[in-house]
Amino acid sequence: MKNIIIASTSTIHGSGYLDYILDDLKTFFKNANTILFIPYARPSGISHDDYTKIVSEAFSEIDKKIKGVHEFENPIEAIKNADAIFVGGGNTFVLTYQLYKNNLIDALKTAINNGTPYLGTSAGSNICGLTIKTTNDMPIVYPPSFNALALVPFNINPHYLDPVSGTKHMGETRETRIKEFHNFNTQPVIGLREGSWLKVKSGSIVLKGTLTARIFEYNKTPYEVESGTELNTLK
Amino acid sequence: MKNIIIASTSTIHGSGYLDYILDDLKTFFKNANTILFIPYARPSGISHDDYTKIVSEAFSEIDKKIKGVHEFENPIEAIKNADAIFVGGGNTFVLTYQLYKNNLIDALKTAINNGTPYLGTSAGSNICGLTIKTTNDMPIVYPPSFNALALVPFNINPHYLDPVSGTKHMGETRETRIKEFHNFNTQPVIGLREGSWLKVKSGSIVLKGTLTARIFEYNKTPYEVESGTELNTLK
Repeated sequence: MKNIIIASTSTIHGSGYLDYILDDLKTFFKNANTILFIPYARPSGISHDDYTKIVSEAFSEIDKKIKGVHEFENPIEAIKNADAIFVGGGNTFVLTYQLYKNNLIDALKTAINNGTPYLGTSAGSNICGLTIKTTNDMPIVYPPSFNALALVPFNINPHYLDPVSGTKHMGETRETRIKEFHNFNTQPVIGLREGSWLKVKSGSIVLKGTLTARIFEYNKTPYEVESGTELNTLK
Repeated sequence: MKNIIIASTSTIHGSGYLDYILDDLKTFFKNANTILFIPYARPSGISHDDYTKIVSEAFSEIDKKIKGVHEFENPIEAIKNADAIFVGGGNTFVLTYQLYKNNLIDALKTAINNGTPYLGTSAGSNICGLTIKTTNDMPIVYPPSFNALALVPFNINPHYLDPVSGTKHMGETRETRIKEFHNFNTQPVIGLREGSWLKVKSGSIVLKGTLTARIFEYNKTPYEVESGTELNTLK
């Protein structure tokens, strides 16, 4: 019953908000007139209203109305009644903190597992995994847990970045960070490059977009998978 | 009474472990024959023993012995009795988790505030601030708190990285991340570039090394300070 898009990013370099995926979203959201938007991740700290406005403008191009979850007196009911849900990017810790604070984790899990179409980008994709322990974000607030929605049986690393050759910076590469993750955790991690997304439909999980994705499994050498690969055996 | 070095990194590009700061460490640790090393941050997931060995080799060049805190039956007593303490880099979440788990936060605060010389690099510097909320690390384990040792009245961002011009990657710049931090927190943040360190001695906090550092204060435009600047009014 699940019907989910887990996208690495909302925006790819040189194009507008959601532009690169808008045609697919038209089909994906074909049965929803209004999409419930969860603006909690607040990129650059913008307000829920301002963020919702940006998203409204993007979705107006495919004739969808956007309603921010913060506009509802009862956000749990809003999720229950939503035709479709979009959680946008920003800071994953801020997003997770606010979802727990408003008691929305279970409501989201139930709605999405029952078939409400869900789109996540960046932070909104991190929370689709088992935990948020592979986010790239700065831990600017302390959430009550790192456990996420567990809509897929692995973790997501959005905005996956290949090592930059010739850099003199001594900070860890993304691959090093994910290897460190596997010293303490065993679930697979999908490194989703900007422009890639996972399409989850019932029991199927397929890589979409033009790029390959990098798969990190516990105690295995990381490897690339092509667009179109079925990933439903990964766990 | 405090006597602390808060270094951005252990290693700068093209030179060996601690090489760039070894002369200063010789003076800094002049009254300590043995330095207690806390290897909890485990860079790349290496064992406490292996990490301690790397550090021992580096310090043997200035005739210092290294003893890992994990070698003691009672690590709290080890900290109380230490001539000097070094906490190395790796993953700040792993380090913080382990410090809380072994109940070492208060022991460290007491010892360092009473004058035990302390060297931190990278993750070991993050924990000198008020919280670890400005670490660059991946949150691969969930610590019981983000509160740190609060040895200085601000936060540290080690391995501070200037925005890379011409990049097509849509992930946040370091400056954007720290600005987001200031939507939820008010303490200043010092962006310490690799090769820079803070020397804390009693009431004085001075920037050392050849580079400038970037200061982020709540509701202010970020600014640069020169090496040699006294930062003890920052709070």
